Amino acid sequence: MCELLAMSANVPTDICFSFTGLIRRGGATGPHGDGFGICFYESGGLREFKDYQASATSAIAEFLRTYPIQSKIALSHIRQANVGAVNLQNTHPFQRELWGRAWTLAHNGQIDLSRVPQANFYCPVGTTDSEKIFCWLLDKLREQATEQTPWSELAQLLQHYCQQLNQLGVCNLLLSDGNGLFVFCSTKLSWLCRQAPFGPAHLCDRDLTVDFSSVTHIDDRVAVIATQPLTDNEDWHAMQSGEGRLFCDGVSTWQSLGPSVVHPKGSGL
Amino acid sequence: MCELLAMSANVPTDICFSFTGLIRRGGATGPHGDGFGICFYESGGLREFKDYQASATSAIAEFLRTYPIQSKIALSHIRQANVGAVNLQNTHPFQRELWGRAWTLAHNGQIDLSRVPQANFYCPVGTTDSEKIFCWLLDKLREQATEQTPWSELAQLLQHYCQQLNQLGVCNLLLSDGNGLFVFCSTKLSWLCRQAPFGPAHLCDRDLTVDFSSVTHIDDRVAVIATQPLTDNEDWHAMQSGEGRLFCDGVSTWQSLGPSVVHPKGSGL
Repeated sequence: MCELLAMSANVPTDICFSFTGLIRRGGATGPHGDGFGICFYESGGLREFKDYQASATSAIAEFLRTYPIQSKIALSHIRQANVGAVNLQNTHPFQRELWGRAWTLAHNGQIDLSRVPQANFYCPVGTTDSEKIFCWLLDKLREQATEQTPWSELAQLLQHYCQQLNQLGVCNLLLSDGNGLFVFCSTKLSWLCRQAPFGPAHLCDRDLTVDFSSVTHIDDRVAVIATQPLTDNEDWHAMQSGEGRLFCDGVSTWQSLGPSVVHPKGSGL
Repeated sequence: MCELLAMSANVPTDICFSFTGLIRRGGATGPHGDGFGICFYESGGLREFKDYQASATSAIAEFLRTYPIQSKIALSHIRQANVGAVNLQNTHPFQRELWGRAWTLAHNGQIDLSRVPQANFYCPVGTTDSEKIFCWLLDKLREQATEQTPWSELAQLLQHYCQQLNQLGVCNLLLSDGNGLFVFCSTKLSWLCRQAPFGPAHLCDRDLTVDFSSVTHIDDRVAVIATQPLTDNEDWHAMQSGEGRLFCDGVSTWQSLGPSVVHPKGSGL
């Protein structure tokens, strides 16, 4: 499988701390050594960094860990290949343009390629189920919505189609156009929101603590979403199977189901 | 304006030497300090690196200058903004998917935005004439060709549409899908082919010499295309206005017009 990480913030924020924890799982504290990708939305633009090498040892990952790129939405993925060879075209996040916006998707799970519906408009470059899912979801948005459709409605559409995918296999995913961040949990996904009063956070995968009270403003808000909690002293909310959420400006503004299950601090998840 | 750089090679090759020369022109030896981008095709996949900061001082450019990524086709662009703000969405190369292939374009020149024909299928994310040109060219390929169309025919189609653009303004461009590299000269573009017997090459923009005979195999072939020659001791061919070329595996396999004008070594161009 793979691991996912995303961030939504109300002011441009770097993801270096969370990324430092995540990339250790790509060949050091975890087995996800088949490449990684991360993309940053910055003022309406997008840039991505990808490598087919293990994130724990990749020179590009090491560069990014210490180079604070400020963005309001970022998505990342470390890969343990199941479907598709280890190469760039199978490395998440994938990107496509729709309505003059750059959309990206990262996926964790597995759906039999033959069961993923075919898209008409977009066509996969690689051979993963994940990119095929992405193409189909964007096709559906293009059919069912317009560029004026608000994110609250886009989230409901995406929830509907993700529930269909959830019947076909495992489909934890992150999807964004730089304005909203839609998250769907099939089997495993947790999130938290950091806001005032800020305190220290300690990584699970590396002995590193940041005291966010010393690097934030009182109005800052940052939501972090990950396959598994990245810190061991904060309250992470475990999402339920079939649960979808929309994050905008560091807040969960829409959810499909009841409240997530809270894992108390230090639960080791 | 801007400056362009591209490479086509018959074996995976790094572009570090040429890139080292180019990025100096982004704020040091040249005025093109409004960001840069570079993309690498590697075994059917694509990765890109972009920055809105000047390439001469960008930490990302400095990383890439010393991190040899091996690819058979690479495209790069350093920007001096005329149309569109300095931000990521206006940073070349642009990318879109067509026929399950990742296409990229970098452009130098200027065409009045209102004169660039509208595309139906693709939509610009940013506000440059260049991205609008890209969307229109891919629309035309989608209309006039199929995924089976060989590059020799794609080049003729692209030549036809680039000549139309050339009537509307200045349009030097590089376009690729990772298999072929199409190049069109409107006002300024030069190229050379490095092959055996290899010799030393010396950059114009930095006192750096590489003796390619010590780092190559006798069968290697690399074509380099740039707005202005990057070395001062090799034979660069200056393309004529309206001339299009297709490069595959380090060779110019198709051209629209008569031979380019050869600038003798040390002409300082």
